[in-house]
Amino acid sequence: MKFGIVFFPTVGGTDGEPTPTQYYDDGLHLAELADELGYFQVKLVEHYFFDYGGYSPDPITFLAAVAARTRRLRVATGAVIPAFTHPVKLAGQLAMLDNISGGRLDVGFGRAFLPDEFAAFGIPLDESRARFEEGVEACVRLWTEDDLTWNGTFHQFGPVTMLPKPAQLPHPPVFVASTGNLDSCRIAGEQGRHLQLIASVATREKVQEALGVYRRAWADAGHPAGTERIDLTFPCFLDEDRETAYRQGEYVERKMSEKMASAVSAWATVKSDQYPGYDRMASAAIGNGAGIDERVKENKILAGTPDDVRAQLTEIADWYGDGITVGLSVHSGQLPRATVERALRLFAEHVAPAFADR
Amino acid sequence: MKFGIVFFPTVGGTDGEPTPTQYYDDGLHLAELADELGYFQVKLVEHYFFDYGGYSPDPITFLAAVAARTRRLRVATGAVIPAFTHPVKLAGQLAMLDNISGGRLDVGFGRAFLPDEFAAFGIPLDESRARFEEGVEACVRLWTEDDLTWNGTFHQFGPVTMLPKPAQLPHPPVFVASTGNLDSCRIAGEQGRHLQLIASVATREKVQEALGVYRRAWADAGHPAGTERIDLTFPCFLDEDRETAYRQGEYVERKMSEKMASAVSAWATVKSDQYPGYDRMASAAIGNGAGIDERVKENKILAGTPDDVRAQLTEIADWYGDGITVGLSVHSGQLPRATVERALRLFAEHVAPAFADR
Repeated sequence: MKFGIVFFPTVGGTDGEPTPTQYYDDGLHLAELADELGYFQVKLVEHYFFDYGGYSPDPITFLAAVAARTRRLRVATGAVIPAFTHPVKLAGQLAMLDNISGGRLDVGFGRAFLPDEFAAFGIPLDESRARFEEGVEACVRLWTEDDLTWNGTFHQFGPVTMLPKPAQLPHPPVFVASTGNLDSCRIAGEQGRHLQLIASVATREKVQEALGVYRRAWADAGHPAGTERIDLTFPCFLDEDRETAYRQGEYVERKMSEKMASAVSAWATVKSDQYPGYDRMASAAIGNGAGIDERVKENKILAGTPDDVRAQLTEIADWYGDGITVGLSVHSGQLPRATVERALRLFAEHVAPAFADR
Repeated sequence: MKFGIVFFPTVGGTDGEPTPTQYYDDGLHLAELADELGYFQVKLVEHYFFDYGGYSPDPITFLAAVAARTRRLRVATGAVIPAFTHPVKLAGQLAMLDNISGGRLDVGFGRAFLPDEFAAFGIPLDESRARFEEGVEACVRLWTEDDLTWNGTFHQFGPVTMLPKPAQLPHPPVFVASTGNLDSCRIAGEQGRHLQLIASVATREKVQEALGVYRRAWADAGHPAGTERIDLTFPCFLDEDRETAYRQGEYVERKMSEKMASAVSAWATVKSDQYPGYDRMASAAIGNGAGIDERVKENKILAGTPDDVRAQLTEIADWYGDGITVGLSVHSGQLPRATVERALRLFAEHVAPAFADR
């Protein structure tokens, strides 16, 4: 099991919340600390306009800064959205980041799901899957082929030879971000893509089913066993005192709910058969109103003392299998930097070592 | 007079040229040194596909890494191309960089001029000016307004409130990149934009005329006198031994000519009334075949000993006025890092101090 840190800003700079300058400064500081403490990865989201993720319209820009300040930590997009950026630009940016980081890039690609984002970019929601698939494929081919001619549905170009080529050969690991749609997981496995699974919106059984479908598709397609990578992200609140950790969790999750509610409000009036059930997703993502005790019991949130969280992670490994990467979502901007710092140190010292062999 | 450093890669990673990883690593190292030595700015270009600039399809990504490694140096795009990136993405990226750097961003916007780049993005060359103008205006308004509704020719969106907002208020300094077209210079002055003038493609008289038009338009529009900023870039080769500096200059400029010839070859078959004279630009940019002695005499290239270059810069200040920012183009990737390092130290010690009052 490997442990990364995940940055998902849920702040807008008002009501005493950190400004963007402060949020990034704290993030760089935490990334440096994570690098020192031996964490595996730092991951950042792409979102616009809302406090829900909106401090990060371009994860690559921030990750380049992280790369310049760290030496071992892998830098991961979680995810970038091909529907919103021309593949020539996106492939170029990512290849620059891969080189700037000395080959430490993991690329997660996603479809996006906020109607307001699609509207701003003038992209129909119903094109999201097709644009995602074309965008991922175009990036991979721009990275790996010279004199590429691309005749896609949405983009046509070439022959062109992309510069720079990525540092990792043949190209950086490609992850598909998924909420657990079984078709998406199967296709990802078949194509030899890695998986970033948003586990918070599904039950344990649904996650297990999605992972089963993914792993079988991977094996059936003949990809080398054990080389698939699965990333799962969990909000994490850790303190020597359980009550302190729970109070932090309650506060941050309540803020997340409020911010998310505003970002997904457009789903009240938008329907797309490309996004089945998304009109209910907001309430699912924040636990359908469940309290923190219940969400901890379901292992949707990691919270408590190091002993508590070790027990949770043991269960998570039992449920979902060894070898997964667990992303600790710690930097919403809602907690003071020193609080997050202490949690990262506690985790590195008292939790992570127990999972070296899983 | 202020002195910056300019990175314009002209390498492709073959024939012993630096790989992208090496180029960026050298660049970060040189930027850190420039920060220490008190240089004012580092600037990077946006180009695709060709050794001519192609290591930098997204200057913002690299400048974020520079920002993370430096404390005083301003980070400048020279330039980004609104025609190739949706304004919501571009404004967001730039605002992130402004915050990551703690308000050290100077934004140069350009129209681009390589037909192959326009073709890859599916943008007609003839739309380049209109897309440039709409893109710059959209970015500025996204940075400064809440609930912005944009009904442009090429983009329609809103109402949206951009996150993050830039660190600098009301927004980062905006520069227009120009080859000296008098209309462009006049409009830039009227609108209170700063100017990045590509001085290498025009005679001294043409540059003076363009600057005159720009400064008069700035003053006539009522913008505060002396607050306009003018950036001029010069290739710079400095050594205690004049012959050594000249040999470096000859080598790098010859490589630049070769690389540029390939990048602009499409102008042989493309015509656009939006780009008058661009079919002849390649040969003009590389001096119409003039040798290095002649180009140094014209002050198109800075080369020689510290005494030589001081004399050139005195003439440049006499010709173009005090208070300009001179960008030293030093990182083509064609010279060893140690050579560039020595030149930057020599310049900081023996050249820059003489211009503190100009």
